[in-house]
Amino acid sequence: MRTFKEYQEKLNSMRKNVYINGELVERNDPRLLGGQNIMGITFDAAMSDDPELRELATATSHLTGHTINRFTHIYQTPDDLLKKQAMIRELGHLAGGCIQRCMGCDAINALYVSTYEVDQHYSTNYHERFKKYLAWYQDNDLVGNAGQTDVKGDRSKRPSEQVDPDLYMRIVERREDGIIVSGCKAHNTTAPYADEILVLPTRALKGADADWAVAFAVPADAEGVTLISRPVSPNPRIELKAPYNNYGICDTMTVLDHVFIPNERIFMCGEADFGGRLALSFANNHRFSYCGCKPAITDVFIGATALVAEYNGVPKAPHIQDELAELEATAELVYGAGIAASTTSKVTPSGAREPNFMYTNCGRFHAGKNIMHEYDILISTTGGMAATLPFEGDWLNPETRPYLEKYIMRNPKISAENQHRLFRFLDDFTVSAWCGMEQAAGIHGGGSPIMEKIGIRTNYDVEKRKNIVKRLAGIDDSKNEG
Amino acid sequence: MRTFKEYQEKLNSMRKNVYINGELVERNDPRLLGGQNIMGITFDAAMSDDPELRELATATSHLTGHTINRFTHIYQTPDDLLKKQAMIRELGHLAGGCIQRCMGCDAINALYVSTYEVDQHYSTNYHERFKKYLAWYQDNDLVGNAGQTDVKGDRSKRPSEQVDPDLYMRIVERREDGIIVSGCKAHNTTAPYADEILVLPTRALKGADADWAVAFAVPADAEGVTLISRPVSPNPRIELKAPYNNYGICDTMTVLDHVFIPNERIFMCGEADFGGRLALSFANNHRFSYCGCKPAITDVFIGATALVAEYNGVPKAPHIQDELAELEATAELVYGAGIAASTTSKVTPSGAREPNFMYTNCGRFHAGKNIMHEYDILISTTGGMAATLPFEGDWLNPETRPYLEKYIMRNPKISAENQHRLFRFLDDFTVSAWCGMEQAAGIHGGGSPIMEKIGIRTNYDVEKRKNIVKRLAGIDDSKNEG
Amino acid sequence: MRTFKEYQEKLNSMRKNVYINGELVERNDPRLLGGQNIMGITFDAAMSDDPELRELATATSHLTGHTINRFTHIYQTPDDLLKKQAMIRELGHLAGGCIQRCMGCDAINALYVSTYEVDQHYSTNYHERFKKYLAWYQDNDLVGNAGQTDVKGDRSKRPSEQVDPDLYMRIVERREDGIIVSGCKAHNTTAPYADEILVLPTRALKGADADWAVAFAVPADAEGVTLISRPVSPNPRIELKAPYNNYGICDTMTVLDHVFIPNERIFMCGEADFGGRLALSFANNHRFSYCGCKPAITDVFIGATALVAEYNGVPKAPHIQDELAELEATAELVYGAGIAASTTSKVTPSGAREPNFMYTNCGRFHAGKNIMHEYDILISTTGGMAATLPFEGDWLNPETRPYLEKYIMRNPKISAENQHRLFRFLDDFTVSAWCGMEQAAGIHGGGSPIMEKIGIRTNYDVEKRKNIVKRLAGIDDSKNEG
Amino acid sequence: MRTFKEYQEKLNSMRKNVYINGELVERNDPRLLGGQNIMGITFDAAMSDDPELRELATATSHLTGHTINRFTHIYQTPDDLLKKQAMIRELGHLAGGCIQRCMGCDAINALYVSTYEVDQHYSTNYHERFKKYLAWYQDNDLVGNAGQTDVKGDRSKRPSEQVDPDLYMRIVERREDGIIVSGCKAHNTTAPYADEILVLPTRALKGADADWAVAFAVPADAEGVTLISRPVSPNPRIELKAPYNNYGICDTMTVLDHVFIPNERIFMCGEADFGGRLALSFANNHRFSYCGCKPAITDVFIGATALVAEYNGVPKAPHIQDELAELEATAELVYGAGIAASTTSKVTPSGAREPNFMYTNCGRFHAGKNIMHEYDILISTTGGMAATLPFEGDWLNPETRPYLEKYIMRNPKISAENQHRLFRFLDDFTVSAWCGMEQAAGIHGGGSPIMEKIGIRTNYDVEKRKNIVKRLAGIDDSKNEG
Repeated sequence: MRTFKEYQEKLNSMRKNVYINGELVERNDPRLLGGQNIMGITFDAAMSDDPELRELATATSHLTGHTINRFTHIYQTPDDLLKKQAMIRELGHLAGGCIQRCMGCDAINALYVSTYEVDQHYSTNYHERFKKYLAWYQDNDLVGNAGQTDVKGDRSKRPSEQVDPDLYMRIVERREDGIIVSGCKAHNTTAPYADEILVLPTRALKGADADWAVAFAVPADAEGVTLISRPVSPNPRIELKAPYNNYGICDTMTVLDHVFIPNERIFMCGEADFGGRLALSFANNHRFSYCGCKPAITDVFIGATALVAEYNGVPKAPHIQDELAELEATAELVYGAGIAASTTSKVTPSGAREPNFMYTNCGRFHAGKNIMHEYDILISTTGGMAATLPFEGDWLNPETRPYLEKYIMRNPKISAENQHRLFRFLDDFTVSAWCGMEQAAGIHGGGSPIMEKIGIRTNYDVEKRKNIVKRLAGIDDSKNEG
Repeated sequence: MRTFKEYQEKLNSMRKNVYINGELVERNDPRLLGGQNIMGITFDAAMSDDPELRELATATSHLTGHTINRFTHIYQTPDDLLKKQAMIRELGHLAGGCIQRCMGCDAINALYVSTYEVDQHYSTNYHERFKKYLAWYQDNDLVGNAGQTDVKGDRSKRPSEQVDPDLYMRIVERREDGIIVSGCKAHNTTAPYADEILVLPTRALKGADADWAVAFAVPADAEGVTLISRPVSPNPRIELKAPYNNYGICDTMTVLDHVFIPNERIFMCGEADFGGRLALSFANNHRFSYCGCKPAITDVFIGATALVAEYNGVPKAPHIQDELAELEATAELVYGAGIAASTTSKVTPSGAREPNFMYTNCGRFHAGKNIMHEYDILISTTGGMAATLPFEGDWLNPETRPYLEKYIMRNPKISAENQHRLFRFLDDFTVSAWCGMEQAAGIHGGGSPIMEKIGIRTNYDVEKRKNIVKRLAGIDDSKNEG
Repeated sequence: MRTFKEYQEKLNSMRKNVYINGELVERNDPRLLGGQNIMGITFDAAMSDDPELRELATATSHLTGHTINRFTHIYQTPDDLLKKQAMIRELGHLAGGCIQRCMGCDAINALYVSTYEVDQHYSTNYHERFKKYLAWYQDNDLVGNAGQTDVKGDRSKRPSEQVDPDLYMRIVERREDGIIVSGCKAHNTTAPYADEILVLPTRALKGADADWAVAFAVPADAEGVTLISRPVSPNPRIELKAPYNNYGICDTMTVLDHVFIPNERIFMCGEADFGGRLALSFANNHRFSYCGCKPAITDVFIGATALVAEYNGVPKAPHIQDELAELEATAELVYGAGIAASTTSKVTPSGAREPNFMYTNCGRFHAGKNIMHEYDILISTTGGMAATLPFEGDWLNPETRPYLEKYIMRNPKISAENQHRLFRFLDDFTVSAWCGMEQAAGIHGGGSPIMEKIGIRTNYDVEKRKNIVKRLAGIDDSKNEG
Repeated sequence: MRTFKEYQEKLNSMRKNVYINGELVERNDPRLLGGQNIMGITFDAAMSDDPELRELATATSHLTGHTINRFTHIYQTPDDLLKKQAMIRELGHLAGGCIQRCMGCDAINALYVSTYEVDQHYSTNYHERFKKYLAWYQDNDLVGNAGQTDVKGDRSKRPSEQVDPDLYMRIVERREDGIIVSGCKAHNTTAPYADEILVLPTRALKGADADWAVAFAVPADAEGVTLISRPVSPNPRIELKAPYNNYGICDTMTVLDHVFIPNERIFMCGEADFGGRLALSFANNHRFSYCGCKPAITDVFIGATALVAEYNGVPKAPHIQDELAELEATAELVYGAGIAASTTSKVTPSGAREPNFMYTNCGRFHAGKNIMHEYDILISTTGGMAATLPFEGDWLNPETRPYLEKYIMRNPKISAENQHRLFRFLDDFTVSAWCGMEQAAGIHGGGSPIMEKIGIRTNYDVEKRKNIVKRLAGIDDSKNEG
């Protein structure tokens, strides 16, 4: 396993292919450090002095027997799934939100399972190839970015029907030693501070879409890879520094322009009928992750709502108590769905486990459906101050500071500085561009609610329920016309 | 184990102490058969030819090693909890709703656990006494009614503060060989077709309430017991008979007027500080039951919504598909909470298991919060016909039947009779007095949503969440005034 | 204007063509009196000693100058609309729900407006014909039932495409002196105690549907008319009589089997392209009525919720206060939409006024969307007692009455009898077959929420809003491809 | 009336008393121009070439007969209220949100009405004084900022009970020629670009709070006034300029530190029992304003949702059509409540009109309750692109622009630039710090939903509704004990 420092050293040695707001930047650009600091939590946890945390954050590789970071592990048992979920919630508390390293974990699990099944059907050799890659990935404790979502062009058309064939990532050329690919993966969180990009198809595919049925791994700084990035962080601080303000995230358009992928890094190549399986397997794993991280975020909503109610002097107000209970129920229903997905997980032909699709979808659906309401509760409880609090400069200016110290006072037991710190945090958490990104992620990350609804209803045994009713109602289908 | 017939023979031999609408009736009164028929499902399942169903419906007594009906079993393992939950959903499909025998099961589990803890604290001997009673109860495959909810009088006053001391069930007199009790338990489902009434306190109690801290078992026809009952069923049928219309339920005011309880049937007697523990333990077990039965009911909503959409010729209408997904998510979030409650259940000092309180409450809360919305979806999809369909007599009358056959036609592939059967079922399910009872039960049974909210918020570690936020925000409590 | 007695005498003289549950009955059958008693409210109000009520309930005919019942009036001014709305709310308080006479009022207003427009386009003479009919209708103070909703058969097919052409009401034969019609109008509230049935098309029609474009008036007991009826009432009472239990309603399948309609009663006959206009005009007027009656019903919810909270001793419980405010806001948003619909009503070519379609739809939509939630609030506040209260017979039986008197006691300031009366009322209002009908009506009456959504979105100027955004965003359509 | 230019010239001549992020700035600081540009809309509209717009935006002073900007007008008729509401919606379309000048208008209307009533009771002379001030205010076409919300300190204590008496604005000293006041008004939108600050009490007051019962007008740059400001705008643009990005808003802590107010500018001075009346009158007027501006904002949501659905190629997707209908219903229910508030407005003793409090509260409540759901709908329809779109710099950089042009393409009929413009707008509208402020304003502006709930329930005649139910249920209060 690597230290956080080793991870950052590696990043700093990579080819300069990251753009921010028109500038080509090194990976140690300050705007990219927020995301790296969150990754740091995952490295630190694996080497933590706290044995409980260390146990959560590490696992034993089923390939090598080595102790590895749990984010690089393949689920072997229900307990692996439960621990992953527990780890995400725990680390999410430290990050105050998304721990960002799940997507790599979810991608390797999906590839592990799917490559086996493709091989079974096509007598290909992807699974062995992937296991070799995976052992290297585990031993080097890598951070993988999952490049799944294509830009998709005209949503009413299939990949092969688009005006521009690159609107979905595709095989441009097949060679003896590998393939040339082009395309762009969007909404690509963590790409500028990942080691590897794991590319997967984004949807079910048909025969004509064979050139778009492609999965592979590529170093994030490979020739032909361009990362057009949009970092965002809580507002920077001068005097009122706080852990939350050290963090950040970065979304990216990951452009691959005629990039060569050598054979040993190709994990699907033209098997269109398995495109959907791989896409959905990743979605399932990723929605499972949300069953851990969303409760962590709701925990922050709960803590913030309770704390601001206390600071405002109304900790026992009945409508706030009532809304706290709603937040708590949301957190635990989502987390409970994750537990159910773990304990009812299924062994795949590859031997690895997949969480129960129905529960991962229900959990993610419930989280996505409620996220804006969670903001509503917190903003309502906060009052207007998070949105109208003067900037930190006025706290630093001796002309205005006395006024801010005097007029921020509410609960007389809380110091002016702590009052400011809380409302500054709430400003970051509910009024900032960072918050806007969090809201979009809360709705769309891992699939927006409509996607889970589709997942649920297309996998639900409605006929069984219709038969329950037919029996109760005394309906005999043989009496219908024939 | 008993057969359904043996169960009914026993009922018919009992003392006549059931009133319905002013009449004193035998237990074979037709209005009481609907509930008995539902009990019959539980007896039949335990002797089913289907080995899967039989396995669900039976267990091995940890006291005697005998094969017993699962409804008389004490949870020994997480699997016992999972099986109980699965059994309820399965039998609920057959009943089209509440299987009614849970409350006895939930009461014996609560008594088992609590008697042990009272004994530990007070060196009493309730647990051995209860185990003896339980072995007899299991071997005789009894149906227990839980008498928990007192009529409660003035809700702002404690039991000992009421104008009339009987407004909570209480010890009127203590004798050498037992106690005399008086009071009335309300909302008492199944009492007129139960063998035993298991009486438990309804709330937390304090020292002055010691006379109200009483738990015991009493035969349902014991001297001094009067059952003022309100049976309700789907509408009776003449030609269009259907399984659903054989079922029914019965709520009861169970009045105990100076009833003698012999020592061997007393399981709590004055230990006020354990009143809340026993009350909450029953509530927890009962809310866990709802995590199985409510999904069964939602399954009926799903089947009925899908079926009526098909009959109306709009099975693929997008808004209906969307609402089916909502129903499905509701069912599985509640069921998932039950799974989580089972797999994270805790061993009590007695050795028996209790489901995880947080998940049982979240599951029951979510069910109760959504029940009226489920009706909304089904009624909306049905259209007005369930509410305006002429009565069955017009179907039987040759003058009007041709009109009904002609004008009920929608989907031409479905016969007129099946159309009628479905809308008749929907009439029972959504427009009848029976439906009104189901709605009240859906909201209040096992505790109304406000009770679960209280359960959740008073047991949630909010301080932990506040500390997460304090750390993130850089708040240092030592900087507050001291 | 007629007295209630005169109205009933007329009913009793009508041809016996009403079926209930297989029986052919007279119009003074006890099961039909509940609806008549509600009609009585409208006759009594018009002759009330209370001048305010009388002013609300009467109007001056613009045809004859006579004083007429407002339910027979054609809207001439915004004030006519406001008064109609206020009248419905006021009389709805007396009825505890739907006043039932609106549909006739809404039908004559729709016919008045549409006949004029058909004439303008086709040089027909329907409007004069209708005015003559209307003057007679007003002078005789008639009760009109609106027969709009056809049974509709296969919902995916137009009238002319159905397997059975009668699944929409149609012209079977055209004669010199009139037409022969056949078909069945469903969900036909009030038909068995109406004087006249006013038949209107149910949907937009196209050329091939000309035989289904038919509107006319027919006496409710005309030859060939059969009313297969489903009356429903609150539960009957013996000792605890109450006004609410005198009321009832009756839905009907109104079958017309080769009925002759003379020319002077025909108001549309083949003008398919105006079918939608007439159908929608009725819908608009009827949704406007709901902006008056639904607030009346919500007023009952408010009163009942507040009263049961008081009886339960928790009148100030914060969550109940909060829910009362929600009910109040629902009532006033719907009523406010009706006011807006009135004051922004438009003069039609006929000179009569039509309420603003957007506001009537928004008002009705909001009412329908919230109705099940209103039940949820009231049932939650009530607790289980309305659903488990023993029947009245046990109150009458001296063996059980003392127990019921003793154990119903809550708020010690309220007598046992009043406690019983309130819970009996709540039983009728929330747990009975009557309640089931009210829920269906609350969702579907006047068009279910999905119908109003369609009404709203197909009449909304979305392009205008898109242009607002284009301007703000600096989008220049000329820069798109051309 | 003034031109926009004259307004800005006046601002530029004012004393430098505005702080932003620690800097003392002139009023032409670029960060303050966004708000001024919105004010510009109100000046331009009053002199528009479009006669309809001009009529909306101007009125005739009832004091002087002069043509004045409608934002300085006192409501004389229901039509004045309807026009104000229509004006706000219209100008809100141009601003893409809050037009910001209402608060001054709402404050003068509240002062006009309340000063009259104080005079009636105390024989003071505030009303004449205020009319004189008002005539000057109208003739000079001034922009007034309403300073209402005090910082409030410990919310569980009254003003006179606070540790620091300045936590509510108060009279520090009374002199012959005026008073000295101190305190701080928070959440003070527009203060740095207003001419005048109109100070009003924030809550009901009692006798001991007399020194806090104070209302007056003070120039925004008066000696002792310090404005600690927080401006916020959509993101600035370089090439992709757009009207929306010229706008902004500014919240302020308005600190008055021993400021002298001469008698002629004092409109309440110690009349504690009228504090609540004035505070609530302003709240009522301000909630009425929201019945105009919130529909304007919802119009933007509707336009943006429809446009992005079109750009994404799914304009007819059923779930989007369904959600558009929900947005439309929200807009019109709120606007309809405003119409109802206008047409049922009441004449006050002063002769001016006040909107109907019940409808203004219901309208504002409904808007506040739905705002986060409106964001949910738009963000859901948008997909992730608004949150992950690279910054404008990457559009300007020729290295990356081709990738952005290529991979933004969706609907092939829309140019890449227009695609970018729309998603840039959606970035500003849903993902920015500006959006965070808009959400807080959407919830709290004019009073958060809980405040309107309190307003509604404390002014609702619940007894009347209880009596309706008592009559229906046959409850006779004389049968209760007594």
